[in-house]
Amino acid sequence: MNGAERFLAACAQKPVDRTPVWMMRQAGRYLPEYRAMRERVDFLTLCKSPELACEASLQPVRRFGMDACIVFSDILIPVEAMGATVSFNDKGPALEDPVRSMTDVDRLHIPDPQVHMPFTLQTLRALRAALQGETALVGFCGAPFTLAAYLVEGGGSKSFATIKALAYGQPAVLHALLAKLAQTVADYAAAQVAAGAQAVQLFDTWAGELAPEAYERFALPYQKIVLDRIRGAGVAAILYVNGCGGILEHMARAGADVLSVDWRVALDAVRARVGPSFALQGNVDPAVLLSTPEAVQHAAHGALREGGAVGHILNLGHGILPATPLECAKAFVEAPLTAVERNSA
Amino acid sequence: MNGAERFLAACAQKPVDRTPVWMMRQAGRYLPEYRAMRERVDFLTLCKSPELACEASLQPVRRFGMDACIVFSDILIPVEAMGATVSFNDKGPALEDPVRSMTDVDRLHIPDPQVHMPFTLQTLRALRAALQGETALVGFCGAPFTLAAYLVEGGGSKSFATIKALAYGQPAVLHALLAKLAQTVADYAAAQVAAGAQAVQLFDTWAGELAPEAYERFALPYQKIVLDRIRGAGVAAILYVNGCGGILEHMARAGADVLSVDWRVALDAVRARVGPSFALQGNVDPAVLLSTPEAVQHAAHGALREGGAVGHILNLGHGILPATPLECAKAFVEAPLTAVERNSA
Repeated sequence: MNGAERFLAACAQKPVDRTPVWMMRQAGRYLPEYRAMRERVDFLTLCKSPELACEASLQPVRRFGMDACIVFSDILIPVEAMGATVSFNDKGPALEDPVRSMTDVDRLHIPDPQVHMPFTLQTLRALRAALQGETALVGFCGAPFTLAAYLVEGGGSKSFATIKALAYGQPAVLHALLAKLAQTVADYAAAQVAAGAQAVQLFDTWAGELAPEAYERFALPYQKIVLDRIRGAGVAAILYVNGCGGILEHMARAGADVLSVDWRVALDAVRARVGPSFALQGNVDPAVLLSTPEAVQHAAHGALREGGAVGHILNLGHGILPATPLECAKAFVEAPLTAVERNSA
Repeated sequence: MNGAERFLAACAQKPVDRTPVWMMRQAGRYLPEYRAMRERVDFLTLCKSPELACEASLQPVRRFGMDACIVFSDILIPVEAMGATVSFNDKGPALEDPVRSMTDVDRLHIPDPQVHMPFTLQTLRALRAALQGETALVGFCGAPFTLAAYLVEGGGSKSFATIKALAYGQPAVLHALLAKLAQTVADYAAAQVAAGAQAVQLFDTWAGELAPEAYERFALPYQKIVLDRIRGAGVAAILYVNGCGGILEHMARAGADVLSVDWRVALDAVRARVGPSFALQGNVDPAVLLSTPEAVQHAAHGALREGGAVGHILNLGHGILPATPLECAKAFVEAPLTAVERNSA
């Protein structure tokens, strides 16, 4: 099996020769070749330049040989396309004029991906050609709640106090924002599939900050709109939520084929709780990759054991950290091979 | 029943006339009378002045009539008593000379609570007299892993990358630190009971950042040492972990009487997963208290339903936020009463 076949089989819970592997945020600052690119060009320009974004997406695959290649982009691209002003500084994204009222929601429009985000689609088409069917091409988008969190907070947050105050105090405003985001993101995801994505991962990174009852109201219905469009477009839909240990049973009702989980819950416990209908992706703590290749291999082999031989995609539980040494990234990507070697020895 | 009887009965899973209630960090900046004190005295001085700390502890009880009064202090008090240099700025605690090696661990000594932390014990004695048995007196301490996180990171952290790199790369150093912290905290907890605490809450706030396998190695055994000392001293032991939704079954083996859980998991789901041996405490999202009294009452009534009539202490899922309006704090503390009124109407 090649990487693409292996990854797509695992998404469909079909047998594989070994567990496929990739890493969230695998195109990024831990790579010297990525840092060299970023010395010449800023982050948003990189996202919007198909040739450069294609190169950034391919860098980790070329170096380590992952089974899947995720398109280089940012979850806030559709938010900018809706009319928000987004910039990136050392602390992360900053959004001008945060959304706090129905008038603020009315300011945002629903973009046409072909017109307002053509660069991502061009990058996908170029990647699909470059990968030659050897490595699976994964598209992605941020989920409505997570994008709403950035829009309402005006950037990242620790307590998400502003969006939660809106959720509990003025739920109609938040629902209006989420509905607009859901349509935007669903259109964008479908366009990514049309441009060649063989699977699409929906990142609802911050939905795990919600109480289960609030997740049911403000995250789940909008995840479902996007995931249904992805599956309707004929490819595997992957749902990632950071901090999902308390809401797995809710997450399982969103309509995903693959549940991508963080490291704070064991994969065998996840499978026992969500049942046999899902492939699982994850879930080594990215901080393990700050230690030694031996510790990385140990943790990855643990995830491979807990994930089982069928319907598991080895990944991190969150994005790879910029300070990760290359030899630790290498040990992680090679873990499915070293596990096979050890078992057959 | 008075508040003390009600709280202690709930800890022991005995019948109560209504669910008892208090709030983590209930003595704090959301109270104007607390802010007025803090204009005259800095945070650490307040912690170390029994008369003032007693007053700060009583302020919320006087205003709202909670069933339990937690002693005003800080989890880093024992860390300072071990020889670390601790200060507090706007961003939270800062610790000089972070612990990163066995030599650093050797620098720390195990303090005698009577000699090095007499002020907390004096505050507890004064509070026990002032409360006259009407309101339960709760002591607390930080758990070894959480205190180690501050010592190793040199303050708060977002990713806990440094302590995790130590855990995975040099586990012997971290275990040496945790063993020293466990003895310190166990001694301190036992001294609090001797000074009048009727229950002690162990805050392992950051242990929920660990993968389950790492929680088993670096959090659980050290929680157990402290919890066993608390129960051995004859009072209820409460264990709080933030982000516990993925590791509840592990947390249940630490030896606590009461599991205090964050808002990202539903109380009825917690009970189904940990079984009938525990009282539960929690778990309304503190961010709900930034909205309206009606929304607070709705969320608190939901927690009361999910928590059940026996063996539940209503609380927040994390500390109350400084921006909380007084009328929302009031609605929360009154929720067990309004629930009873509604049910009997």
